[in-house]
Amino acid sequence: MTDIKELCAAAKRASRLLMTAGTEQKNAALDAMAQALENNCGLILEANAADVRAAREKGTRENLIDRLSLDEKRVKAMADGLRQVALLPDPVGGFDSVTTRPNGLLIGKKRVPLGVIGIIYEARPNVTADAAALCLKSGNACVLRGGSEAINSNKAIAAVMRVAIGEAGLPEDAVCLVSDTSRENAAAMMKMNEYIDVLIPRGGAGLIRTVVESASVPVIETGTGNCHVYIDDFADLKMGAEIIYNAKCSRPSVCNAAESLLVSEKVADSFLPMAKALLDQKNVELRGDEKTRAILGDSVIPATEEDYYTEFLDYILSVKVVSGIDEAIDFINEHSTGHSECIVTENYNNALRFQNEIDSAAVYVNASTRFTDGGEFGFGAEIGISTQKLHARGPVGLMGLTSCKYVILGQGQIR
Amino acid sequence: MTDIKELCAAAKRASRLLMTAGTEQKNAALDAMAQALENNCGLILEANAADVRAAREKGTRENLIDRLSLDEKRVKAMADGLRQVALLPDPVGGFDSVTTRPNGLLIGKKRVPLGVIGIIYEARPNVTADAAALCLKSGNACVLRGGSEAINSNKAIAAVMRVAIGEAGLPEDAVCLVSDTSRENAAAMMKMNEYIDVLIPRGGAGLIRTVVESASVPVIETGTGNCHVYIDDFADLKMGAEIIYNAKCSRPSVCNAAESLLVSEKVADSFLPMAKALLDQKNVELRGDEKTRAILGDSVIPATEEDYYTEFLDYILSVKVVSGIDEAIDFINEHSTGHSECIVTENYNNALRFQNEIDSAAVYVNASTRFTDGGEFGFGAEIGISTQKLHARGPVGLMGLTSCKYVILGQGQIR
Repeated sequence: MTDIKELCAAAKRASRLLMTAGTEQKNAALDAMAQALENNCGLILEANAADVRAAREKGTRENLIDRLSLDEKRVKAMADGLRQVALLPDPVGGFDSVTTRPNGLLIGKKRVPLGVIGIIYEARPNVTADAAALCLKSGNACVLRGGSEAINSNKAIAAVMRVAIGEAGLPEDAVCLVSDTSRENAAAMMKMNEYIDVLIPRGGAGLIRTVVESASVPVIETGTGNCHVYIDDFADLKMGAEIIYNAKCSRPSVCNAAESLLVSEKVADSFLPMAKALLDQKNVELRGDEKTRAILGDSVIPATEEDYYTEFLDYILSVKVVSGIDEAIDFINEHSTGHSECIVTENYNNALRFQNEIDSAAVYVNASTRFTDGGEFGFGAEIGISTQKLHARGPVGLMGLTSCKYVILGQGQIR
Repeated sequence: MTDIKELCAAAKRASRLLMTAGTEQKNAALDAMAQALENNCGLILEANAADVRAAREKGTRENLIDRLSLDEKRVKAMADGLRQVALLPDPVGGFDSVTTRPNGLLIGKKRVPLGVIGIIYEARPNVTADAAALCLKSGNACVLRGGSEAINSNKAIAAVMRVAIGEAGLPEDAVCLVSDTSRENAAAMMKMNEYIDVLIPRGGAGLIRTVVESASVPVIETGTGNCHVYIDDFADLKMGAEIIYNAKCSRPSVCNAAESLLVSEKVADSFLPMAKALLDQKNVELRGDEKTRAILGDSVIPATEEDYYTEFLDYILSVKVVSGIDEAIDFINEHSTGHSECIVTENYNNALRFQNEIDSAAVYVNASTRFTDGGEFGFGAEIGISTQKLHARGPVGLMGLTSCKYVILGQGQIR
């Protein structure tokens, strides 16, 4: 417990120095970190092999082993990721606005780092490098708490990066790794309001829920996406079928994949068989209501109410026939996680209504939900997709890792 | 418990309608609410009299009774407050940015309401009207949980406003008052993530700490201000004395009042007696370190370390002689609550360093900390002064009560 407090305090001290670090210095550190990862690839792979061995011994599933495993190519990809972050524009130091008040006070709203960002994440060791890079570029220190299954890999990656940061003239404690991955330590970290300015959980729904419920440090909630595609009365049906196929099947394991298809009853008879023909190519399991089953037959599994709340992250899709746009909007606002939703329509008013009335981070007309991504939105790398409304919503890039402060220039004004 | 859940669910339903309400309709509702408060002044004063009577019977201190008490003039002031909010620009509906991506997707970042705002506050019944007005103008429903000592006043004010909102064609549940002011109810409200999008505590440090520690709903932390004025080696000493006098004495009970004076040892001999001469006019109690006492004498009480962490909200000032700007910056970043700090200097580099290195919401050069206020900053009314870095920092006006969503227009793009 003392250790985690000391670690967070060290990050806070480092954050004071990072706050005023220049862009060139931060970029030089990122390039040095990238080079160091490549130079120490052998050491990192050795540590990773220990993690993989331990995971195998515990009987971990192969898809999780794959997420945990590093090889030379993956280490190179991590290093390239750091170099790409170095190329992104620096989000801090500029002013969002500067105004002069009637009394002569000049009030500027300046972009500044948040301070210390705590990241709690699961298996994939590349998060250690990605998160550190985004935090450092935005002038923040970070406290990284990865999962126990990747602890050797994470330690090696962090140690290599810290040396490089120090050699680049920035404080090594810009990147602090929590080496004791006990639950008590994570719980203590969530209450470190004195030292940590914001917590970002990255991982499954369980992890995120725990952090939201337990933390007194402000949280940016990321990740869960029960995304909907609604095929309107006035849809281009061929476009609709291609969009739902893409949104469901191009990468089912990610949060911007579609989980639920709503179809207006006016077009359900023609649309559903078209969509099924495409989805069958990937053997997508459909779970539908009675009307869907009446059209598509018994190969469609009866959907439970719970199915409509579920983020499957798999080749499974819930389907429902609705009476039209009113029911679609109500149903989505009730069941969605506020991530990404799409209407397929050629009707102007329905497109506008969907945009205005759907309460989600990203609302699409005639495009796949799969575009909700920092890179696709033009923000460069992202630290996650926020599904909360406070501070940052949607893809969180470097700008989302900053705050503002007011700087006020006077000449003796009193009130 | 069921009641509070139902209340919050009703607010959520109302928020869906408010989300798309037009500016004219919201302004009409605000004007109607103002008129209704004036028309029902008698009823409100009667309810308030019951609260005041109960408070007197409990032996409540007179300054708290004064905060609780309403009269015709105060009700008129509440109504005028609502009319002023109607005159402010509507923060929602515009786009912060619109970009076209290489694939043709048009991505707009649109200002939208947060949804449901929960406000937990203490004695003053005017908060019920102020908070409701700011939330409604920004398109949000609110759940208001005032203190038990003002419950009759709050009920009367809320009931009058709700009728007016309904008559203006907006849902009455735009303003929901928690009538059962039990602790259990407040605790349940802090966990209503399903229905409440953000919680704003308004009141003393104890209330704010409780909400920050207990809530799983995202919180905007407001209010505590341990504000510093630092008199630099290169200060205009006369200006410095006027600024500390104004910052301490113009209204000591508010969060932007100065609580701590730091003086460079280079100017302490000349400055401290000048400042004391002014502060003596209001009999300000000084609590100083040894160096301060050596200069000003034994009328200065020895300061404890705790004094330097204390927001006195009274005619009390902690004083410390420091070696110069380095110690001043370190001392402030260690002791301040991140609210407002001021340097008095004529030196360019020290002014810049103070601005860059002080980690507070408002950083002043040569002006009183008392200007940290929504009105003084040109935002119109404010719901509080945020001392956290996430979402809103400094005075939180209507813009701080909004979020963004991305609306994406495509023509069949898939990924």
